[in-house]
Amino acid sequence: MRDVAIIGAGMIPFGRRDEDTLMDMLSYASLKALDDAGLGDKSVDAVYVANMGGGMLQHQSAIASSLVDRLSLLPAAAETIENGPASGASAVKNGLLAIASGYYDTILVVGGEKMREVTGWRATDFVATMTHPQAEYPYGITLPGMAGMFTRLYMEKYGVTREHLLAISLKNQEMGTLNPYAHVEMALDRGGIYDSPHAIVNNPVSADPLHLYDLCPVSDGAAALVLCTVEIAKKTGKPYVVIAGFGQATDTHTLAEREDPTDLKAVTLAAQQAFAMAKLKPSDVSVAELHDAFTILEIAESEHVGFFKKGEGGKAAVAGKTRLGGQIPINVSGGLKARGHPVGGTGVAQIVDIVWQLRHELPENRQVKNAEVGLTVNFGGFGNNVLCFILRRVQP
Amino acid sequence: MRDVAIIGAGMIPFGRRDEDTLMDMLSYASLKALDDAGLGDKSVDAVYVANMGGGMLQHQSAIASSLVDRLSLLPAAAETIENGPASGASAVKNGLLAIASGYYDTILVVGGEKMREVTGWRATDFVATMTHPQAEYPYGITLPGMAGMFTRLYMEKYGVTREHLLAISLKNQEMGTLNPYAHVEMALDRGGIYDSPHAIVNNPVSADPLHLYDLCPVSDGAAALVLCTVEIAKKTGKPYVVIAGFGQATDTHTLAEREDPTDLKAVTLAAQQAFAMAKLKPSDVSVAELHDAFTILEIAESEHVGFFKKGEGGKAAVAGKTRLGGQIPINVSGGLKARGHPVGGTGVAQIVDIVWQLRHELPENRQVKNAEVGLTVNFGGFGNNVLCFILRRVQP
Repeated sequence: MRDVAIIGAGMIPFGRRDEDTLMDMLSYASLKALDDAGLGDKSVDAVYVANMGGGMLQHQSAIASSLVDRLSLLPAAAETIENGPASGASAVKNGLLAIASGYYDTILVVGGEKMREVTGWRATDFVATMTHPQAEYPYGITLPGMAGMFTRLYMEKYGVTREHLLAISLKNQEMGTLNPYAHVEMALDRGGIYDSPHAIVNNPVSADPLHLYDLCPVSDGAAALVLCTVEIAKKTGKPYVVIAGFGQATDTHTLAEREDPTDLKAVTLAAQQAFAMAKLKPSDVSVAELHDAFTILEIAESEHVGFFKKGEGGKAAVAGKTRLGGQIPINVSGGLKARGHPVGGTGVAQIVDIVWQLRHELPENRQVKNAEVGLTVNFGGFGNNVLCFILRRVQP
Repeated sequence: MRDVAIIGAGMIPFGRRDEDTLMDMLSYASLKALDDAGLGDKSVDAVYVANMGGGMLQHQSAIASSLVDRLSLLPAAAETIENGPASGASAVKNGLLAIASGYYDTILVVGGEKMREVTGWRATDFVATMTHPQAEYPYGITLPGMAGMFTRLYMEKYGVTREHLLAISLKNQEMGTLNPYAHVEMALDRGGIYDSPHAIVNNPVSADPLHLYDLCPVSDGAAALVLCTVEIAKKTGKPYVVIAGFGQATDTHTLAEREDPTDLKAVTLAAQQAFAMAKLKPSDVSVAELHDAFTILEIAESEHVGFFKKGEGGKAAVAGKTRLGGQIPINVSGGLKARGHPVGGTGVAQIVDIVWQLRHELPENRQVKNAEVGLTVNFGGFGNNVLCFILRRVQP
């Protein structure tokens, strides 16, 4: 397998982008990544688009070849990759393997979603299309519903408390205020005599024991990467990032069929595969972006990838170990919780944030000092398809 | 790049399959391919699903990981690939490159579509979602409409006649009667004093100059392949097929923007890339499956890939050069015209048919004698994303 580098990373602010079409968002993010890569007149060989809802929400298919034309990248190859909320990482994976094979040298990977086209139950229903079509969807289970049940089990088994979950909300929304690309730009506060609208006392139950601020928002957004061979990356003369490790695993499609539903086997397996390929261990990681669609997931994933023992993730968050400057800074971007979660865009955005970290180009209040190794977890369905990447800084 | 082999091929009869869900069809085809591959207890490393309408027609996403679970292939990696009607070949491409990279050894690629869930204008509208979202779709252009205009231009420029088009319909529907997997199982006839219901005199105009029997049907169906390393293929001790060449190119998303709309640049480029990689030329090909969603496309593609000079494809069809036993047998399966066109399934089904040809296992009335090299063209949008594969028989 040839080594694969990332030389371009771009993102547009996530949030509500009524003025933009899905194609607009994918184009803007792509142009930023291409500009960042500095390929000049050189085109890319292929384009991978990560998207889940183009058909359902925009009534549009063949988005990838349409994007190639719009970006004047003809005759680059193109296809769309869909893997629920893990679509982004799946697209990066296919870009990685395509360059590793030797067939392509330069690939644009862009992920995005225009989800605010639908609101309320329709948005929840759109996301629920990834549940089991016979065993789950017809019974009305939603992703927040699954997450609520998962949280209750996790609390009972591992002693996670509401205070642990709150530590994630507070940290990630605070980081969101520092991230110009974040959807949720307000910090949470603990309230007081004069409660602010964002005080945690104004945090209604959403799917017990999860409250509103335990859930990520429904976002529009897009993010893009330019992948290439190490030879091309070296020519840039700038620090670049290599994909040192990758893993992916599938678990049962229905949550109910798992022997122990608190055991996120696909996260463990994907991380093990990625660490084995990278020849690294969890303590080597400088910074991580985990898939905190629900606060409990940041805690559970931080344990399943090996940063903390089972039952220690929540306490570690409360103790500040996952904050900037802590033992292992997690979701310095604000995570899905604050950056937002345009499903097809998330897996790409996580890697964009890690690339920025590893290139040491973020402002001081967001930069993990001397970050050398980054990790991402992109969590599809309810852990039924998980991808993990390990990225490493290279100083040429 | 490591060489990649195909050791399993399976298909279910295309047509109207009201009794089956999309997941059923994907499962049945997968099991046939896995059974054919004879992997025994050995699982596959990854699964690629080609599908275009799961979201729009079945309101279902994350199909790939759901399928992995249903087939008991956990924890195999999985994702869905969408590229309009070229989704099938795009999924095979990603399987090819993933094994070529050295990361995976065995991959299941399955493509399928349940299109009969919608009928009439809704089916046409579903397919039209692949047209340009601003420049084409809002104006009501359909794929048959585009094909009609393309045919008119092709007739004017190259002297193609209705008789040429009819030669394709007659050949492919005749071959369909011999194919147990074909959707359209009736032969066309030229009619007479007592016109049969399928006589070409009962062939109304659909999109002038195209008539009903110039169009492929709207089909349910699925097809699957097992890809692996050559080392694994050799162990089977049986003849197998290698992917000798692959090419893919994108053209402008709107037909109107092409300098010469009769010039299917993406077909030419994809074929050139595939022949260059395979170190073969058009005259080396024993059998081809071309994307005859409309009869004109079989003629145009047979010229663009290099079997015939421009303007000669129609005459060659009338002269029988593309029939079984002719110079280059095309669509011996019946093609999209008769086998049917479940969009996500087509690109995979084309390769399944070529694999059967190259393994010399079809009945005599369908088998191309001593077939050594096969070619497929999977045509996305209206030629805006085209993939070409060249397959070669290996006798161990």
